[in-house]
Amino acid sequence: MSGRRATIGVFDSGVGGLTVLKEVVARFPEADYLYFGDTARLPYGTKSAATVGRYAASSARYLEQQGAELLVVACNTASALALDAIRDAVNIPVLGVIEPGAERASAVSRTRSAVVIATEATVASHAYQQALAARQMAAREKACPLLVPLIEEGWIEHPVTEQVARIYLDEAFAGAGDGNAAPDVLLLGCTHYPLLRRLLHRLAPPQVTLVDSAESTAAAVAQKLELEPLPPPSPGEERRIVPRLHCFATDSVEKFRRLGERFLGHEVERVTHADLE
Amino acid sequence: MSGRRATIGVFDSGVGGLTVLKEVVARFPEADYLYFGDTARLPYGTKSAATVGRYAASSARYLEQQGAELLVVACNTASALALDAIRDAVNIPVLGVIEPGAERASAVSRTRSAVVIATEATVASHAYQQALAARQMAAREKACPLLVPLIEEGWIEHPVTEQVARIYLDEAFAGAGDGNAAPDVLLLGCTHYPLLRRLLHRLAPPQVTLVDSAESTAAAVAQKLELEPLPPPSPGEERRIVPRLHCFATDSVEKFRRLGERFLGHEVERVTHADLE
Repeated sequence: MSGRRATIGVFDSGVGGLTVLKEVVARFPEADYLYFGDTARLPYGTKSAATVGRYAASSARYLEQQGAELLVVACNTASALALDAIRDAVNIPVLGVIEPGAERASAVSRTRSAVVIATEATVASHAYQQALAARQMAAREKACPLLVPLIEEGWIEHPVTEQVARIYLDEAFAGAGDGNAAPDVLLLGCTHYPLLRRLLHRLAPPQVTLVDSAESTAAAVAQKLELEPLPPPSPGEERRIVPRLHCFATDSVEKFRRLGERFLGHEVERVTHADLE
Repeated sequence: MSGRRATIGVFDSGVGGLTVLKEVVARFPEADYLYFGDTARLPYGTKSAATVGRYAASSARYLEQQGAELLVVACNTASALALDAIRDAVNIPVLGVIEPGAERASAVSRTRSAVVIATEATVASHAYQQALAARQMAAREKACPLLVPLIEEGWIEHPVTEQVARIYLDEAFAGAGDGNAAPDVLLLGCTHYPLLRRLLHRLAPPQVTLVDSAESTAAAVAQKLELEPLPPPSPGEERRIVPRLHCFATDSVEKFRRLGERFLGHEVERVTHADLE
């Protein structure tokens, strides 16, 4: 793909995957980006593997038809339940976020023990547990179904969100300590959760590092594209790059624009309605 | 339809419509029932009118093909946004829950002022406001997007749910008082909310009566079927009738069974997977 711009497709059930897109853009500002949000059929995280597989495969095919040469499955639930179904559906390289997320957790953990928070469906698949076990790490997985609706309600720094997150984290970390080394990683296994990073950092035990898949997904993209990415931003540095980005949404374009801005950090300009049915 | 049993179809985006089904069954225990939950595409309440219309029309057609002779749209969002689309899609009588709900509110209100709580999409449609205005009632509508996820998490009598409901009701009733008579009705404009009846009753101002659409929907069914229903249950009486019921769900049958029991009050025996795509 040298000599011209690569077209990278990013797929999620909704707008949350824009947190992953943002990180990839920071490393590859020169690529063209296509983003697909399956907003008419979201959420995936409460649904069965069969349904998620069907939805994810049709979404992936759509991005391939639009010209994507590499597909990043930013949705943790689709990565956990449907990566094979997606790979069967398209003829371009496909990257999920589970392996990069586990890789990142493994790189920062000393105690070899992690807590993973994610949707019901991701937790039920145990995809993170398996990916961490392959790296000699123990994992305690905890479904947090209320966090996405709270974030979508806009209650980011809100006493209710704090109370709910405390209930979830207390349960997850209480169980994780039994007979094992204390977890020193909290893996954010859903694209929405980075918006609660500050709150979760405050509530997690002090020795815990928060990890999400976005940064290591960018590294995996580099490998696939055989391109040299920009170095990761240094701590505190914020790269404000407006990508060449065309978004597709299966539900309302206006709502995608409105919610998307919150995740992308700037206006989402080009959004087209996509009809998959 | 005299001389043999009627087949009544009840449609909802998920399991919540079983609260309406239960009420209809209590009045017409002798009918056959078909229930359709579009669980692979839920929720409807956060989606656009175009998407809800498309989903609801295909769901209604499915129930007609299965033999429904009368269709009750138990889903408030579909009733508010897509009743015309549904009527265009099928050749059987169609009943929504908005008109019966407004009728019931009108029957119990003295101050002619109500608060309506519902999904984002139902509130945005102002369907309840219009139905109440036609009955000379003022209405303040309030979207409560967190209540459904809290109920589905099973947090029915839970401090977080109480705090969230208090925030929503405080906002709704504070605004409703301005320059008008105080509302004396709280209309539960979503099939999930009856599960929070006790909690909402405790949090609402003391003069307020809680109203949901289920009971008056049963009366509307009687009118359509030209049948004499059983009288409504007397206060405190609980009729435990196990209906002749066949359920269809577009996502996992197991999950429908598990969640459905909570709404129906007894086991959901016959559930079949329905594929609409």
